Amino acid sequence: MSASRREPLKPGDTIGILGGGQLGRMLALAAARLGLKCQVFSPDPDSPAFDVVQNATCAEYADVEALEAFASEVDVITYEFENVPASAALVLAARKPVLPDHTILETTQDRLAEKDFVTRLGIGTAGYADVTSPQTLRDAVARLGLPAVLKTRRFGYDGKGQMMLRPGDDPEAAWASLETRAAILEAFVPFEREISVIAARGADGQVVSYDVTENEHSDHILKISKAPAAIPDAVADEARRIAKTIADALGYVGVLGVEMFVVPGADGPQVLVNEIAPRVHNSGHWTLDGASVSQFEQHIRAIAGWPLAEPLRHGTVTMTNLIGDDVHDYAGWLTVPGATVHLYGKRLAMPGRKMGHVTVVDPGKP
Amino acid sequence: MSASRREPLKPGDTIGILGGGQLGRMLALAAARLGLKCQVFSPDPDSPAFDVVQNATCAEYADVEALEAFASEVDVITYEFENVPASAALVLAARKPVLPDHTILETTQDRLAEKDFVTRLGIGTAGYADVTSPQTLRDAVARLGLPAVLKTRRFGYDGKGQMMLRPGDDPEAAWASLETRAAILEAFVPFEREISVIAARGADGQVVSYDVTENEHSDHILKISKAPAAIPDAVADEARRIAKTIADALGYVGVLGVEMFVVPGADGPQVLVNEIAPRVHNSGHWTLDGASVSQFEQHIRAIAGWPLAEPLRHGTVTMTNLIGDDVHDYAGWLTVPGATVHLYGKRLAMPGRKMGHVTVVDPGKP
Repeated sequence: MSASRREPLKPGDTIGILGGGQLGRMLALAAARLGLKCQVFSPDPDSPAFDVVQNATCAEYADVEALEAFASEVDVITYEFENVPASAALVLAARKPVLPDHTILETTQDRLAEKDFVTRLGIGTAGYADVTSPQTLRDAVARLGLPAVLKTRRFGYDGKGQMMLRPGDDPEAAWASLETRAAILEAFVPFEREISVIAARGADGQVVSYDVTENEHSDHILKISKAPAAIPDAVADEARRIAKTIADALGYVGVLGVEMFVVPGADGPQVLVNEIAPRVHNSGHWTLDGASVSQFEQHIRAIAGWPLAEPLRHGTVTMTNLIGDDVHDYAGWLTVPGATVHLYGKRLAMPGRKMGHVTVVDPGKP
Repeated sequence: MSASRREPLKPGDTIGILGGGQLGRMLALAAARLGLKCQVFSPDPDSPAFDVVQNATCAEYADVEALEAFASEVDVITYEFENVPASAALVLAARKPVLPDHTILETTQDRLAEKDFVTRLGIGTAGYADVTSPQTLRDAVARLGLPAVLKTRRFGYDGKGQMMLRPGDDPEAAWASLETRAAILEAFVPFEREISVIAARGADGQVVSYDVTENEHSDHILKISKAPAAIPDAVADEARRIAKTIADALGYVGVLGVEMFVVPGADGPQVLVNEIAPRVHNSGHWTLDGASVSQFEQHIRAIAGWPLAEPLRHGTVTMTNLIGDDVHDYAGWLTVPGATVHLYGKRLAMPGRKMGHVTVVDPGKP
């Protein structure tokens, strides 16, 4: 069934969400405000999203019977994470619309396919090479130079499944430690800034993107996002154009995040695409409090077949992730003027775990 | 147990909410954002608030066993409506903190007790008289004049349990039709405007109120709220002072709405209190999208023993209730610039039923 031919959801209809983390939770909260119900599918009984829905399915993604029952109880299906197993997506898509279309995951789950896709669109990326063996790795190093980053093609996130190769490192040892035969080598990018664009594309093809966000990572995990990014308008326009080009080329329906690098160039700063996240994105959390419509509501509107909204920003916005023990500072954040505290309801504050975030809106700086 | 001596809630703790309507639903959504769970108690299996919580208790308020089980599963209890049966409140308060303190309901559930309370604080109200019989009604009419409004002392809302007496009407017939022995007659107030103040009072006694809201009713049901109200600063200050005086005198913990009239006076406009709502209030719904912190989050913060936030308003805000068939216009509202649509998940759009609301923020007019 083509997404564009679907009937819009009606208030009271049910959205199925694959994944029960904070993204699923915030999607469900946005759907509730619009009078839509959600049912969450997650194998983890402690899923944060379970707290905010009446109906949850706690089962493995390989449990075909559970997937079929889930599909029968919802009107449309979406997901909060890009690593939805293809087999699960197939079972579901045979029964109910899955949005964004699950075939998009074939591109975004594979770093090589994703970079080839972006390159075919005429959009710049870091130099990269397919790596399948010690010999191809040596060839890639010879071509791209060091430092460079060796990454598994699939299932990497937050710095997992990747390692930096520096001059003098032994490529053979790195290859062995990655424990894969499907990797890519990415040239090191001497970026000025990391930015991202959160864009929504509706079932009718309308694309609405937010102001470009500037991001700071710590130990490969997003720590701080600021909107708007401190970049020239031309660079911001280019970044948003790139996100729209990608969304259009994917025939995307929903919200996606495109992570990019701003690098110095002879003719001024250039924008390279780092990664496409086919889902709501951590660097868009500021939109919950800093804009008239959040990325979560835009995603719900898109997959419901409803019109997207034009976001208005409430000022200069800074979003800080509460990672691991950071969450114990929540009480201090509660008294910061203009701060909004979001806690995800996770029980254990393990190192590196995203436990919540705080948005501070400064209305004085529009 | 004194509220002020309670330990603050911790993230992951559970708030029990009596009542499953849209106010309970929006309270639960606000609690979820702060990492707090909610359990909703309501006799109606179709309760809108059930959609957004994992645990719900569907039972009558007279079901002592259900109340006891509910109390055992939550850490603090609050309510979304002022007509909580005293017997239910007693059962619960013996087991867990009930906030705002349930004894406040004795005042606010009874129009006569409420007006006496406000009067004792030196705050103006419409002229009123206790009415218990045809003779006391005739005496009241002689004293207050007509037109005047005859109201049951208890269980009135949205115009229910009240009738206008006009010159020439037969008081005896009015008395008979009201089917009560406990009523008050209220003098007709030739008001310039209806306004309200939404105020939060924390467990530590801190009071934070929002900008005064101006309200328009239609068939006794709130139709439109605008913030800020178009009134002189001195009148707004007086309105907020009145709300604080009431909150302090009640030893209130949570959010309350105070409905007031602005009437012309010899020395300029005067403020009279019409009604106290010991709960989040429809005229405060604009704070969800028009302020940096909503009335729902303030209520949750207060009953959690957390600090209140100082709200910043995002512009000039207009909130329109979607009543009955109005809800079928939701799709049109979705495309209005700056509009945020809230639908409550109610199945049947019966006449007079509050089905949702829309907030429009105009950032150009701060």
